[in-house]
Order: sequence, then C-alpha cells, then structure tokens
Amino acid sequence: MSNHTYKIIEITGSSPEGSDQAIRNAISKASESVHQLDWFEVVETRGHIVEGEVGHFQVTIKVGFRLD
Amino acid sequence: MSNHTYKIIEITGSSPEGSDQAIRNAISKASESVHQLDWFEVVETRGHIVEGEVGHFQVTIKVGFRLD
Amino acid sequence: MSNHTYKIIEITGSSPEGSDQAIRNAISKASESVHQLDWFEVVETRGHIVEGEVGHFQVTIKVGFRLD
Amino acid sequence: MSNHTYKIIEITGSSPEGSDQAIRNAISKASESVHQLDWFEVVETRGHIVEGEVGHFQVTIKVGFRLD
Amino acid sequence: MSNHTYKIIEITGSSPEGSDQAIRNAISKASESVHQLDWFEVVETRGHIVEGEVGHFQVTIKVGFRLD
Amino acid sequence: MSNHTYKIIEITGSSPEGSDQAIRNAISKASESVHQLDWFEVVETRGHIVEGEVGHFQVTIKVGFRLD
Amino acid sequence: MSNHTYKIIEITGSSPEGSDQAIRNAISKASESVHQLDWFEVVETRGHIVEGEVGHFQVTIKVGFRLD
Amino acid sequence: MSNHTYKIIEITGSSPEGSDQAIRNAISKASESVHQLDWFEVVETRGHIVEGEVGHFQVTIKVGFRLD
Amino acid sequence: MSNHTYKIIEITGSSPEGSDQAIRNAISKASESVHQLDWFEVVETRGHIVEGEVGHFQVTIKVGFRLD
Amino acid sequence: MSNHTYKIIEITGSSPEGSDQAIRNAISKASESVHQLDWFEVVETRGHIVEGEVGHFQVTIKVGFRLD
Amino acid sequence: MSNHTYKIIEITGSSPEGSDQAIRNAISKASESVHQLDWFEVVETRGHIVEGEVGHFQVTIKVGFRLD
Amino acid sequence: MSNHTYKIIEITGSSPEGSDQAIRNAISKASESVHQLDWFEVVETRGHIVEGEVGHFQVTIKVGFRLD
Repeated sequence: MSNHTYKIIEITGSSPEGSDQAIRNAISKASESVHQLDWFEVVETRGHIVEGEVGHFQVTIKVGFRLD
Repeated sequence: MSNHTYKIIEITGSSPEGSDQAIRNAISKASESVHQLDWFEVVETRGHIVEGEVGHFQVTIKVGFRLD
Repeated sequence: MSNHTYKIIEITGSSPEGSDQAIRNAISKASESVHQLDWFEVVETRGHIVEGEVGHFQVTIKVGFRLD
Repeated sequence: MSNHTYKIIEITGSSPEGSDQAIRNAISKASESVHQLDWFEVVETRGHIVEGEVGHFQVTIKVGFRLD
Repeated sequence: MSNHTYKIIEITGSSPEGSDQAIRNAISKASESVHQLDWFEVVETRGHIVEGEVGHFQVTIKVGFRLD
Repeated sequence: MSNHTYKIIEITGSSPEGSDQAIRNAISKASESVHQLDWFEVVETRGHIVEGEVGHFQVTIKVGFRLD
Repeated sequence: MSNHTYKIIEITGSSPEGSDQAIRNAISKASESVHQLDWFEVVETRGHIVEGEVGHFQVTIKVGFRLD
Repeated sequence: MSNHTYKIIEITGSSPEGSDQAIRNAISKASESVHQLDWFEVVETRGHIVEGEVGHFQVTIKVGFRLD
Repeated sequence: MSNHTYKIIEITGSSPEGSDQAIRNAISKASESVHQLDWFEVVETRGHIVEGEVGHFQVTIKVGFRLD
Repeated sequence: MSNHTYKIIEITGSSPEGSDQAIRNAISKASESVHQLDWFEVVETRGHIVEGEVGHFQVTIKVGFRLD
Repeated sequence: MSNHTYKIIEITGSSPEGSDQAIRNAISKASESVHQLDWFEVVETRGHIVEGEVGHFQVTIKVGFRLD
Repeated sequence: MSNHTYKIIEITGSSPEGSDQAIRNAISKASESVHQLDWFEVVETRGHIVEGEVGHFQVTIKVGFRLD
C-alpha cells in the first residue's frame, strides 16, 4: 500500500446555494472523467455579486486520485 | 471594457447561522453604500465561541467594485 | 483584563453534512475537556471523497482559550 | 517628517497592452480622486483570455498616500 | 450582536521612537476621522535608516471598525 | 451559468522579449490543445541570465478553462 | 545532545504597555506550568483599540521546550 | 530555445524508506506516461504513522516537462 | 467514522544522521505519551552547523492523533 | 555537474520605463562585480508615484550564480 | 535617480532589552562595514528563554543599501 | 552573549545522492570562505530529472554565521 502514487488536479466549482455545494459540484463533475478520486483540499473561495447579493460561490479545490 | 478600474475593500461579516451567511451579511451591508459590487474573495474565517458552541462565524472578505 | 494569557490548540473536526458542521463538531469535542474556549480560526478545509461524492468534510481550526 | 501617516488602498487596473500599462491605468484613475499618491506594490497579476489570446491584463496593486 | 459588519482599512504609521509608538501614531491619526475603531493587526514592520541608525520605524497595520 | 466547473492547469512560457510576451506564448501554446481558455493568473516570474543579460523570461501561470 | 525532542505550543500574551511586554507576560504565564522553555517565535501581533487608543497589545508566540 | 513552453503537474509519491525515495517513486511513475520530464519541486512532505512509527512518507511534488 | 476529531501537536525532532531520522525520532518520542498517532506533516527543516559540517538536522512536524 | 553550489543574492533594480527594464538594470549592475550569473526570480514589484504617474518601477529579484 | 540599484542583505540582531533595540543593534553592526544603508524590513522576531524569562530578543531584518 | 549579530546568506547545494547530501555539500562549500557557520534552514527543495530519474537534488538553504 505504501508505494502508491497520486495525481492532484485543480478545479473550480460554483453554486448559487453555498460554498459546500460548490465543492460538491466540482467533485461531481470531476468524477465523470476520473475514477478513484480520493481527497480534496480547498485552495480559494470566491464568488460573483449580482445586484448586491451573492450570485454564486466559486470554490477552487485540489483533488487527489490514485494512479494505478 | 478592458480599461476598467476596480477598487477592493475588506469587510468582516458575521452570523450565528454559518459562514456562507456571514459572507451574505457582509455583502448586503456593503451594498447599502457601494453600488456595482462585482466579486468577493474570502480572506479569513474565524468565530467566537460561547459556552462551548459557535456563537457566530466571522468571515473577512475582499470585495471588488468598478470605479466608473 | 488586559494581561490575560491565551493558549491556542489545533484540532480537526469532520462531518458528512458540511464544513460548518465539521467546525461545530471540533469545538463540541474540545469543550468536553477544555473550558473557556474563546475563539476559533480556520486553518485548512479538506475532505475525503467516496465513490465520487464528498464522504466527509475535514476542517482544521485553531481554538483559543484563556489560561486563568 | 518621521511621524507621517499613510493610507493604503487596493485597486485593480486593466489593459490589453500589458501589465505595466494596467498598473499605469490604475494609478491614473486613483489620482483623479486622491492626491499625494506616494508608492505602489503589485499584489496579483491576472488576466482574461479571449479566443486563445490575452484579452487584457488585470493587475491588482496596493497604493499608499499620505494623510495630512 | 452577532450580525455586526466591520470594515478593515490599512494604514502605515511612523515614529523615530519605536515600533509600538508607530502603531499608536497610526491609530491616533485614524481615530480623527473614523470612530469605533475596534482592533488592529500588524501587517509589516519596516523603517528608514539615516547615517547608520534607525531614522524612524514604519509599521503597517490593518484596523477594523464597526459599520453601524 | 452558475453551476459551471473549471479546470486549472499550470504552464510556464518563455520569451527573450519580456514577461508579458512569455505569458502570451504560454497561452498561445495552451490554446492549441485546449479550447475555452478563460483566465490566467501569474504564479512566478523567473528567467535565465546569459553573459550578464536576461537570456529569456520564464513566467509560470495558472490557466482556467470551462469543462462543458 | 543531538537527539533531543522539543514540543512547541502557541500562546497569546497581552499588555497595555507594549508588544515586548505582551511577549514577556505570555512567557511568564507559560513558565508557571512548563519548565525548560527554550525559545519563542512571534506568530502575530494584534491589539484592541479603546476610545481611539491602543487598549492592549496581543502577541501570539510559539514557544518551544525540551521533552526529557 | 527561449520560446519553449512547459507544463507543470502535481503528484504525490510515497515510500516506507524515506522522503527522497518517495520523490523517486513519484517521478518513476510519472515518467511511464509523460516523456521529457525536466525538473521537480517539493510542495509538501507528509506521512502516515502506524503503531508509533512512520508507515510511509508522502511527498507532493510539482513536475515540469516540455510541450513540443 | 466521519465524525472523528483529531488533535494536532507540533514537535521538533533532531538527528545527526539525516532529516528523515529526525522525523522518526520526533514521532518515536511523541508516541511514548500519545497513542493513536495518525499522520505527520513537515513544517520546517533546520539544523545546527558544527565546525563547517551539519551537527544535526532539526525537523519540526505537526502530528495528528484521534481524540476518542 | 551535479555537485555545483550556487549563491543567491537579492537586489532591487529600478527604471522609469517598465518592470522588465528594472530587472535588466539590476542584472546589468550585478554583472559588473559578479560573473557567471545564472538565473533570477522576481521577489517583489513596487514603484514610486510622482504627480499621479509612475515615477519608476522597482523590482526586487533574487539572482543565483555558481561558486567555482 | 530612477535607475539606482540596491542590494539587500539579511542580518539578525539581538538584545536583552527589546525587539526595537535588537533592530538597532543589527543596523549599527551592519553600518560598520556597509555605507549608505537605506531601509530595513523585519523578517522574523524570535528569542531565547532563560529560566522562564526572555534572555534576549533576536530580530532578523533585511537591509537595503545603494550600489553606486 | 546576547548582543551578537548574525549574517544570513542563501546558497543552493546539489547532489545526485539525496537531499540531505545536497545540504551537506552546500555547507561544505560555504565553510571554505566563511567561518563560524552556525545554523541552516531549508528554503526550497528542487531537482533536475534526467531520462525519467532524479539527476540531482538541489536544496536551497539559508545559512547564518556570527559577525565578530
């Protein structure tokens, strides 16, 4: 188990509902093309403002997955 | 469009409900005096603890808006 | 009041529900053994991914409390 | 001279020509409303991409000026 | 109390006497135009050197105050 | 629009002419294989020195593009 | 001597007099319960403002001590 | 030579033997699918602990390679 | 499994042999008093120099362990 | 080739023309007294403002050169 | 004036009296061998603890001076 | 003892054998021209890759020594 190698990619998810949902959306999208996603780490939380309110949250995460 | 200038201010919002709501409260307050708020970026997430529970979340954000 | 001393400890809480709940869980656990918890500050937000979805959020916080 | 106080504001300038010109544009705009601008410091250099080419550079700077 | 919003500004104070006095000078100047200053945080400590000695200390601080 | 996901890649461009041109070269190369490049952010500016002069600038950027 | 192990704790001291005294107060308090304190390192300097003046300085330090 | 473009990827290698071997394992794995790997840079060194001893070291590196 | 809480402590190990051994020494010492050590993360690598050679490496690590 | 040692010095160049020229000026000056300059890395970009325009750019770089 | 070049060196001064005095001692020592010292910037503030009290403050600063 | 001043220089050592040996090589080289080297601190660990394997490790360290 100890010699596994992991690749880490960086993606930005967005959601009008909240920052956690933006993370979930990013992971859901990434899992369409990459299997064995293992962990994530938040890099940055931003968002767009529309008419004085949060339009949507944008959370950039690093996602790690095992290379077989 | 390419020569716009933006000003960035730093504000801290708070909420007993959660960190996303603290962001929304900060933006709501800022939009009372500044128009054309465009984006935000989370700088720091803190909070006060009251009797062993989160009293309120305090999220500091940078907010950018266009100078006409 | 001005000569108080505070100790700061670092703990990681987790929750399948969301990052705010992970913070609440960490503080709830810490308050079992330490009284007078005063503030927290988020250090890092990570999580595990299970079958292409967030398994649980893991939020590392610093927690400060007064030394009497 | 030694007891002067300075205020520091953060602004983002943009330009399709280059990053130096984005800085110049930001300072030019700021000098319309604030006098005695004294120094700047680059915080971040970003930009938008349009059809595979740089649409415009966006440089965020801190600008310091003396409070009389 | 939990829904207060704070604004954070950045100022640089200076003093030939020492770094603490540079902080006090910055806050004293800021309090002339802003009321309800609440806390500060040191961002950077610099200084000018004149003939091989410290001419004056320059301390940049962030200062937070409540928006009513 | 609010649920888009973006992928972020990191590339280093180089140019003997200047740092802006190094950025343009990196983006030009990346756009050969990736469409819908949306924004970039400078991570690091370095360069090689040849016979006491800048041989070429090397600018590392993050580039974001939409996943459809 | 070369195989010693040290533990590092983080504490915040405060003082109305100055930032150095805040450090001394933190170390004085820590030495009541921990012996063999060996070194400290400043992590953050903050403070509270009362009626437009520094109420007290708050300096957070890491303190290292030998585990026997 | 001066207009080369490089891509940078992030990978985590692991090894029970040591941190250098974890780096070598990561590069060995990456070189199976990418040619012309040129340089690496250590981003983070972590590890898992099993029964009070290092189970394996995990070193995250950035690896750069030339795009032809 | 998802609601576990972890505590993180910071320790510095040393060794004349190398940086990996300094990590192992730190973990070995910590495991004498704390059980269920789970992971570590390198914070800083330093060392003392004696007569122009490395006297010993000093590696500061964060170590996480589960609170039951 | 693999056992070379490099020394790294830090210098600030300035130029009214632009940030790239400030880098070139710094390297040109450094090459008067140090041979075999090998690479540079930008640490900070600042500048002075004179009458609402950039007086000159000041770029601080690290410069590496081989010790024979 | 705009094409001056500056060199930046890093030194650590110490003092049992306080952190400002440690800065003054470092600059005083540096000015013995380098003329035209122009500015300093604090990099790190540490200190040694002797018998539960600050033995001496150690402040590391960067010092800039003009190359003629 | 408390008023000593130290100078800090930055050097990069390299070795095909490992990162610790790269540090030892850097210190060995530095000790040829500077006496009383006192401590080091790792700034960055990089390396070159040759034919899919580590060609040599390059470790940049800060080295401190006493000014008499």
